[in-house]
Amino acid sequence: MNERRLDATTGEWTTYSAARQERTFLPSAAHCPLCPTRPGEPQTEVPRSSYEVVVFDNRFPALMADPPPPPSGAAGGPLQRVEAAAGATEVVLYSDDHALTLADMGAPRVRRLVEVWADRYERLGLRDEVAYVLVFENKGEAMGVTLHHPHGQIYGYPEIPPRPRLELTTAAAHLEANGTCVHCDVVARERADGVRVVDENRSFVAYVPFAARYPYEVHVASRRHAPSLLDLTDPERDALADVLASVLRAYDGLFGFPMPYVMVVHQAPTDDGRWLAVSHLHVEFTPPHREAGKLKYLAGSELGGGAFLNDVFPEEAAARLRGIARSWP
Amino acid sequence: MNERRLDATTGEWTTYSAARQERTFLPSAAHCPLCPTRPGEPQTEVPRSSYEVVVFDNRFPALMADPPPPPSGAAGGPLQRVEAAAGATEVVLYSDDHALTLADMGAPRVRRLVEVWADRYERLGLRDEVAYVLVFENKGEAMGVTLHHPHGQIYGYPEIPPRPRLELTTAAAHLEANGTCVHCDVVARERADGVRVVDENRSFVAYVPFAARYPYEVHVASRRHAPSLLDLTDPERDALADVLASVLRAYDGLFGFPMPYVMVVHQAPTDDGRWLAVSHLHVEFTPPHREAGKLKYLAGSELGGGAFLNDVFPEEAAARLRGIARSWP
Repeated sequence: MNERRLDATTGEWTTYSAARQERTFLPSAAHCPLCPTRPGEPQTEVPRSSYEVVVFDNRFPALMADPPPPPSGAAGGPLQRVEAAAGATEVVLYSDDHALTLADMGAPRVRRLVEVWADRYERLGLRDEVAYVLVFENKGEAMGVTLHHPHGQIYGYPEIPPRPRLELTTAAAHLEANGTCVHCDVVARERADGVRVVDENRSFVAYVPFAARYPYEVHVASRRHAPSLLDLTDPERDALADVLASVLRAYDGLFGFPMPYVMVVHQAPTDDGRWLAVSHLHVEFTPPHREAGKLKYLAGSELGGGAFLNDVFPEEAAARLRGIARSWP
Repeated sequence: MNERRLDATTGEWTTYSAARQERTFLPSAAHCPLCPTRPGEPQTEVPRSSYEVVVFDNRFPALMADPPPPPSGAAGGPLQRVEAAAGATEVVLYSDDHALTLADMGAPRVRRLVEVWADRYERLGLRDEVAYVLVFENKGEAMGVTLHHPHGQIYGYPEIPPRPRLELTTAAAHLEANGTCVHCDVVARERADGVRVVDENRSFVAYVPFAARYPYEVHVASRRHAPSLLDLTDPERDALADVLASVLRAYDGLFGFPMPYVMVVHQAPTDDGRWLAVSHLHVEFTPPHREAGKLKYLAGSELGGGAFLNDVFPEEAAARLRGIARSWP
């Protein structure tokens, strides 16, 4: 019972998946389906007694390598386009320790995760039905996680989804006008300004974007033009893991609790080499908090208008996060 | 301390407003700043002992008719464009009764509100600094309301914000290809199909969109091409109020509690007549619930990718809402 439908008034696809309504919802730690299988206990999603990192297809998949025919048919005409739910929806378990978060794991284990992301980006990208690979993590009940065990997700979409597409077309216009990658220009400018930088090393820089939409939004971008994780050398992958770990520590230090966030890895589309010149690897963190006890809700202006209001100036947010990142031993 | 900044990597403006961080947050009913002023008590936002409908400038405005110069200056170059926070952010109080919701008020009072929306759309649209008027309501703590008193908001943006712009450019492409307004075509198709219709009368139809992004999303659209509320006759305004009241009742009946939602009125931009042929008045309701006890959170795929997953097929959602709407005496 999965299918995708095109909205003729916006050009956006929505994926329907009735079975997802039945998915496991906030089980207790004792019944976590992502923990290793304990001897004598019912089998979890992972039939082993321990593990480092595990990747598997979502048990309640939205997108599939071999999807069933769309239940509502495919003859709706241009106003009602329907397609099968082709693609991929994978789960990445970060650790067999139920109580850890990515922030707790430190740079070496984040480094291993970067390797997994690169591997899945390459393999999913090779599939015919996948045009864009989105690596992401939804963290915290404030972001709607239904399972607390530390994990991320990887979606393989059959076309470039709206926000990456907007970023790519904006960058293409900038390239046409200026002859440069807008992300390369932004990274150089942020490093020169310094006031919005949270942390940096030889290959990556973390900064609160000049026009951040969320109060404590942080982007971690490659200093040189690299379209995807596959373009990074081993030392560059180390450097990425170091900066990611630093940002995660700063977030948890900001309010004194594990910071909820959405983390999204932006990389090049996998079916169309024309985007390589304007695809610039970066990781976007968008935490929902505006204060320790207050969330920034998205509502009429943001969801209805697409126009964000932000109560925290980026320079102020960066100063707070930088102070924590730099105080770390 | 307000300003607007352009994101050079997406072309989107974000509005900063440090003072909003201090805004009143979920006061008790006894301290509601939107209630009428009680004799002998401190003055609220409304210095009267009772009222019907009140419109006033937001006390913590994001956008202003006469904004201060942007605090971070305006000399950032094309990568860091900054502008003053010009525009309007108004509050519309629906009733002096703190405990009412719009759903409780019934069609005659919704009709009066439609008149207020039309009036504000016209007046704000005439201002030089306003290019697009967005009438909306954020309802319920699930949508982040900071004040429970029944109220909506009206923003006047200095340019067409991203989502209305996407809708307009998509409709313009449809007009170019087919010679018709895509919304007129969709409304005719929904009425012919019937399966997604929630309610209708001689002038307006309420339906769950064919590619709805939210489980119980409903659009209320004019059956004829009307770019804004100003194009409606008095009987058409009556008809709009009737269908809105019906949808609101159906929502509250769906799960047996006052349904949170974002409601947004889509109308023509106010500075550029070229959009009139593709601007089609409609009201979009996007409630966050997917079940009585579960919200549909926006996270990695929706916020990071712009690609929505929906667990409820539109025909099923429409059947449930229609059943409630039609059972009403």
